[in-house]
Amino acid sequence: MMKKAVLAFSGGLDTTYCVLYLREQGYAVHTVTVQTGGFSAGELEGIAAHAQRLGVVSHVTLDETQRYWRKVLRFLLYGNVLKNATYPLSVSAERAVQAAAVASYARSLNADVLVHGSTGAGNDQVRFDMIFQTLLPDVPILTPIRDQRLSRQQEIDYLVARGVEMNFEKAAYSINKGLWGTSVGGRETLTSNGRMPESAYPTQVSKQTPEALSIDFEKGEPVAVNGDKMNAVSAVQAIQAIAGPFGIGRDVHVGDTIIGIKGRVAFEAAAPVVLIKAHHALEKHTLTKHQLFWKAQLAEWYGTWLHEGQLLDPVMRDIEQFLTSTQRNVSGTVHVQLHPYRFSVEGVESANDLMSDRFGQYGEMNLGWTGDDVRGFAKVFGNQTRMHGAITGEVARYWEAE
Amino acid sequence: MMKKAVLAFSGGLDTTYCVLYLREQGYAVHTVTVQTGGFSAGELEGIAAHAQRLGVVSHVTLDETQRYWRKVLRFLLYGNVLKNATYPLSVSAERAVQAAAVASYARSLNADVLVHGSTGAGNDQVRFDMIFQTLLPDVPILTPIRDQRLSRQQEIDYLVARGVEMNFEKAAYSINKGLWGTSVGGRETLTSNGRMPESAYPTQVSKQTPEALSIDFEKGEPVAVNGDKMNAVSAVQAIQAIAGPFGIGRDVHVGDTIIGIKGRVAFEAAAPVVLIKAHHALEKHTLTKHQLFWKAQLAEWYGTWLHEGQLLDPVMRDIEQFLTSTQRNVSGTVHVQLHPYRFSVEGVESANDLMSDRFGQYGEMNLGWTGDDVRGFAKVFGNQTRMHGAITGEVARYWEAE
Amino acid sequence: MMKKAVLAFSGGLDTTYCVLYLREQGYAVHTVTVQTGGFSAGELEGIAAHAQRLGVVSHVTLDETQRYWRKVLRFLLYGNVLKNATYPLSVSAERAVQAAAVASYARSLNADVLVHGSTGAGNDQVRFDMIFQTLLPDVPILTPIRDQRLSRQQEIDYLVARGVEMNFEKAAYSINKGLWGTSVGGRETLTSNGRMPESAYPTQVSKQTPEALSIDFEKGEPVAVNGDKMNAVSAVQAIQAIAGPFGIGRDVHVGDTIIGIKGRVAFEAAAPVVLIKAHHALEKHTLTKHQLFWKAQLAEWYGTWLHEGQLLDPVMRDIEQFLTSTQRNVSGTVHVQLHPYRFSVEGVESANDLMSDRFGQYGEMNLGWTGDDVRGFAKVFGNQTRMHGAITGEVARYWEAE
Amino acid sequence: MMKKAVLAFSGGLDTTYCVLYLREQGYAVHTVTVQTGGFSAGELEGIAAHAQRLGVVSHVTLDETQRYWRKVLRFLLYGNVLKNATYPLSVSAERAVQAAAVASYARSLNADVLVHGSTGAGNDQVRFDMIFQTLLPDVPILTPIRDQRLSRQQEIDYLVARGVEMNFEKAAYSINKGLWGTSVGGRETLTSNGRMPESAYPTQVSKQTPEALSIDFEKGEPVAVNGDKMNAVSAVQAIQAIAGPFGIGRDVHVGDTIIGIKGRVAFEAAAPVVLIKAHHALEKHTLTKHQLFWKAQLAEWYGTWLHEGQLLDPVMRDIEQFLTSTQRNVSGTVHVQLHPYRFSVEGVESANDLMSDRFGQYGEMNLGWTGDDVRGFAKVFGNQTRMHGAITGEVARYWEAE
Repeated sequence: MMKKAVLAFSGGLDTTYCVLYLREQGYAVHTVTVQTGGFSAGELEGIAAHAQRLGVVSHVTLDETQRYWRKVLRFLLYGNVLKNATYPLSVSAERAVQAAAVASYARSLNADVLVHGSTGAGNDQVRFDMIFQTLLPDVPILTPIRDQRLSRQQEIDYLVARGVEMNFEKAAYSINKGLWGTSVGGRETLTSNGRMPESAYPTQVSKQTPEALSIDFEKGEPVAVNGDKMNAVSAVQAIQAIAGPFGIGRDVHVGDTIIGIKGRVAFEAAAPVVLIKAHHALEKHTLTKHQLFWKAQLAEWYGTWLHEGQLLDPVMRDIEQFLTSTQRNVSGTVHVQLHPYRFSVEGVESANDLMSDRFGQYGEMNLGWTGDDVRGFAKVFGNQTRMHGAITGEVARYWEAE
Repeated sequence: MMKKAVLAFSGGLDTTYCVLYLREQGYAVHTVTVQTGGFSAGELEGIAAHAQRLGVVSHVTLDETQRYWRKVLRFLLYGNVLKNATYPLSVSAERAVQAAAVASYARSLNADVLVHGSTGAGNDQVRFDMIFQTLLPDVPILTPIRDQRLSRQQEIDYLVARGVEMNFEKAAYSINKGLWGTSVGGRETLTSNGRMPESAYPTQVSKQTPEALSIDFEKGEPVAVNGDKMNAVSAVQAIQAIAGPFGIGRDVHVGDTIIGIKGRVAFEAAAPVVLIKAHHALEKHTLTKHQLFWKAQLAEWYGTWLHEGQLLDPVMRDIEQFLTSTQRNVSGTVHVQLHPYRFSVEGVESANDLMSDRFGQYGEMNLGWTGDDVRGFAKVFGNQTRMHGAITGEVARYWEAE
Repeated sequence: MMKKAVLAFSGGLDTTYCVLYLREQGYAVHTVTVQTGGFSAGELEGIAAHAQRLGVVSHVTLDETQRYWRKVLRFLLYGNVLKNATYPLSVSAERAVQAAAVASYARSLNADVLVHGSTGAGNDQVRFDMIFQTLLPDVPILTPIRDQRLSRQQEIDYLVARGVEMNFEKAAYSINKGLWGTSVGGRETLTSNGRMPESAYPTQVSKQTPEALSIDFEKGEPVAVNGDKMNAVSAVQAIQAIAGPFGIGRDVHVGDTIIGIKGRVAFEAAAPVVLIKAHHALEKHTLTKHQLFWKAQLAEWYGTWLHEGQLLDPVMRDIEQFLTSTQRNVSGTVHVQLHPYRFSVEGVESANDLMSDRFGQYGEMNLGWTGDDVRGFAKVFGNQTRMHGAITGEVARYWEAE
Repeated sequence: MMKKAVLAFSGGLDTTYCVLYLREQGYAVHTVTVQTGGFSAGELEGIAAHAQRLGVVSHVTLDETQRYWRKVLRFLLYGNVLKNATYPLSVSAERAVQAAAVASYARSLNADVLVHGSTGAGNDQVRFDMIFQTLLPDVPILTPIRDQRLSRQQEIDYLVARGVEMNFEKAAYSINKGLWGTSVGGRETLTSNGRMPESAYPTQVSKQTPEALSIDFEKGEPVAVNGDKMNAVSAVQAIQAIAGPFGIGRDVHVGDTIIGIKGRVAFEAAAPVVLIKAHHALEKHTLTKHQLFWKAQLAEWYGTWLHEGQLLDPVMRDIEQFLTSTQRNVSGTVHVQLHPYRFSVEGVESANDLMSDRFGQYGEMNLGWTGDDVRGFAKVFGNQTRMHGAITGEVARYWEAE
């Protein structure tokens, strides 16, 4: 009986090569495409048809969009995760989910080998390897592209020789589209100082007139857009549809790859960036100072560890419990104003708003304490520094020094 | 002989009241105005003349702008400090320096009392109290406005009764201008959902045509703007002059005050925001992953502690040493494109750029390691999670659970 | 009708004074003693009788020991909290619980005022004030001892004049006993260099022969001692009974008080110290590296914030969720050997032990990966540092420099 | 001309094999032994003679003990680094220094290859690989033992066949001795629950009578022992000589290896443990609360990163600057009492002691502030939690809940 190979399949050059190669090695090839919000229905049909033409034993599409939200994205939103204050982790977040879905499917098929088409030059190989080996520790992992170090032309020659028909042209920009944003790589991002042209972005700017947008949050999750109730995934999609045509959420990020080199990527991510800033504004009104402090510390690291393929480290579950706990009062409406290429958060309404004027307003006389109380506070709050200064004498020297 | 009172003097209603009140209490009043980049020459002359008319024994203006950079602002730039990812600490940063300068001057005069005009309702009282008590622990602090809980009208009546002539009208927006940005408070910022009108911002938007801007950094400090060499303070001012008229760097921040309530403030801070984003971009190219991680953790806290008036805590010196050390390779040129209300960082040039193609490019075959190396890396990097999953069985349950 | 005063009552000099003083001010005085594990039954009866003799309207004893464990102590154990690597927070932990229990009881009585007997010189006043004001924001707090700044002798004279009979002698050492340890203050702890005499410790050393002790943990909580199943509170008491007579868990701590000065205290805390070290050992076998890292960071801060009276900050609930999550696999048996004045953790047995030899042993050839894999790992793990060294040249300079 | 191989040489079985193997491969073999405080003069002579007998072209001993202190150990002391609250990193710390010294020497020889004798099963291979590749990126690394996966017996057979005479018996316990402690591995440490016998420890307990020990620190470094001035390395050695025979500083640690599995090791480290506890006590008297907090956070990570072979990551230099800055006031004398198997820190004397009674004593009336001040402090310090409780209502629910 033939050995079963389960292949994570996007229908591109690399994974097409893998199908043919695996078949020639005598495998029964089962392809899987994981939907995490980036494929249109037509694209998924095209991929399925392509797989069938390549002679796979079976092909399935797994729609993991809801699970993607539940297992990963909501925590990135709870944590306001923008890597290095810039990048919403559009690609890294979905790779983990795709890899896990493929592994889970492969278990149900009793697969003999797990296959991914990553090269030896990027982050994705590490994410696929680590999630495969953790979820299916006894199933070997094959990586034909990485192992054979093939050039693009060698892959094309191989496929043409076997009569495969597909578009072999290399796009000027490599695009990766998902629910949490679209990355764009090209000639310009291979250098440290190249500006991405407008035309490289998949979503062109077609809106010029400012628009108001309101988002309702319930315990940190978006539950309504402009007053229409919907689930979180639909809210992301609705906001993307509204804000995307303004060219909002575009930027270029240079970051640390898992393999230690710096990588630069352009992206457009209107919904993630708008949601994160709106959510963060609501948190600034509803969380205490130390909730905000610790969230920031943990979320920064959570995002990085996810980026590095470590979704399955049990510490991630612990941090998710922390983040979920912080969201219990993060409910209310956030008002956003959209403009071409930018947006502003205009304000929030929340029953849990700690800026409540029940206790007086900042800069005005307050109901709960007096100036005398604050004088006492300042004395005690500064006590240790005052004593340290008097004992060591260094504080005066510090100030006078050039 | 009369007792000497040294008063931090801005020439506004509160400190004008203080002068008269102190004189009536029998003090020889010495006023000090500290320039940290926010006053024009004309404004400083006006304040001095006003002080003389009020009958002070002496008035001085201390220009502490360079010291402000050296002791505080450069560390906020090294740390890319934007409080809660938003606010460059425009006001908090300069209050500490003003308080320290007044205390230092008071020591030279052998002052008998230190006086500030803060009310009992805001952050500034804590900053002045704590820095005064640390630098001059033996000199009592007087705070007539806080102690007497006077209303605005009571102060005006008091001054009018004594023949003081000044503009008693309350401005629609209270403005605080300094080298690191201008805060704007008004009716809208007293609520959680008010949008600040264009007219409230001191700098109106007068530029519409995009402009390129380049900033040279040397060990983290700006040393040239558009190729013109200048010191850091001049660079901040030059960038403000170029970027300000685009309306760049405006936002509204709600944050935690020292006294525990939430405070909301609008601000415009073109130079700080452009500098921080440009500097951060250069760091993302020149620092290692863990330098970036630890800088972010420490700088967030440094900014908060400064905001809370704790500049003189010795831990601040320790963090400054850390931050300074990280900057040793942060040298190069950053290219920025300015647009109305927004800007983008286009790229960097640096001899220390870790994205150097000497070692191969991200996503391309590399010179220093192979796909086999990365396969080994992934195995070992994911080892503990793999074992944990196999021993506890929880990783499969995690993934399958709803 | 008389106003009701609810007083946190220990029966000592300060709170005895408060009863008399409140009665003279016309209050109906209701006293409350909160048991958190430190009082014997006889002591509680004595306190109740004393209260009755002082003429209180009512006296109650609230046994909050179980709640103390559930709300506070288990998190200190989950977090292995030893303040500054030394002190299990014996006193700070129970004050918060006592204050909350008193406030909760006062609500049920519709108290008009809340009263505590703290002086103006220590931590406890802050803990009582903050927890009272948060749980009963509308009920004023009275603090006669703090307000009147009475000396010990003045209090005694006042009580003697009113015919109160009690032991007015000052003990050589002030003792505070609770479930999580006993603090001891005296002449020696008022200086930085005084050694506490043996006789100062309430538990004298009566065991000389080493003894084995085993503790079973279930999800981080002790569930059996030497094989006998019992609840956590009983386990703490059993371990204290076994290990206390060895003189284990004694030390002297100098720490930062809430009010900014340093305070020094001796303590004996056999059960807490043994439990923490045993629990930590079990965690080192069952948690991943990053679980251990983040637990340490969060728990250190959690302990400090609790120490500072901030139990009710909502961030504490978030951290508790994190800590609880980390404990899901912390189950097993820990073997401890007790000696006079010291103990050692000998080993653990756990089904979740990550040191399982299913995957090979440290230092031996392993089943899951090869030396080649590790070579690849080292190349990639050190990639960024290698490139940084080559680009900046600083790494060679670093090493050669004196 | 023959190619030059530089080999890190300990004279044990593995590195002896390497010499023979390299010679047969046609290399001119240059051996290096790095002294970091663990070898006696006699041992070093024996190693050198052994190398000569094996036919090396040259052998050198590099005494790097002082550099070891300067580059690594003093930062572990500044940071009070005990990994997982237990282990002073006795082995990890010195490997990095040995590897760097070998690389530096190899550069001076223009070596063609760098060789280390690590197996594929431990931490050391990663440390050697990473430090070699960073300091000499262009020189290939050979690892014969790892590459050939030889068993102990195979190595012995190989050597015997070539007439090598040495002690081929396997010791019951593998010992690694250095300035910062001695690790002991054996049958018992291969399991999670084995107790190390007394006889396994190289230093036997020969002192029974308690002894006083005083250590003077100057800016965090030990400068005198029992009043005798000496440099830091000598101080470590002197303290080891005094405290070692008490059996102090013995423990068993289970920790996370670089390669992801748990490793268990016994150690004896009298001087490191006594120094760290004494130094920490002095810091608790001389540093502010937030200095202690941030030191703990950074030092924990610094130790782990060093353990993982990342000494050359530039972030380590940044943290060293932080740590050095914190030590500027850590000067004074610490008094320690030594007992069999344990010690206690009795007190400190320091001109910078923040427990100075110039400002009043903890628990006594103070000179600098009043009970009223603290009442105000508590109000403001607890303000946000109070408001949060009132707005959300959750604080009462929290307390009442089971």
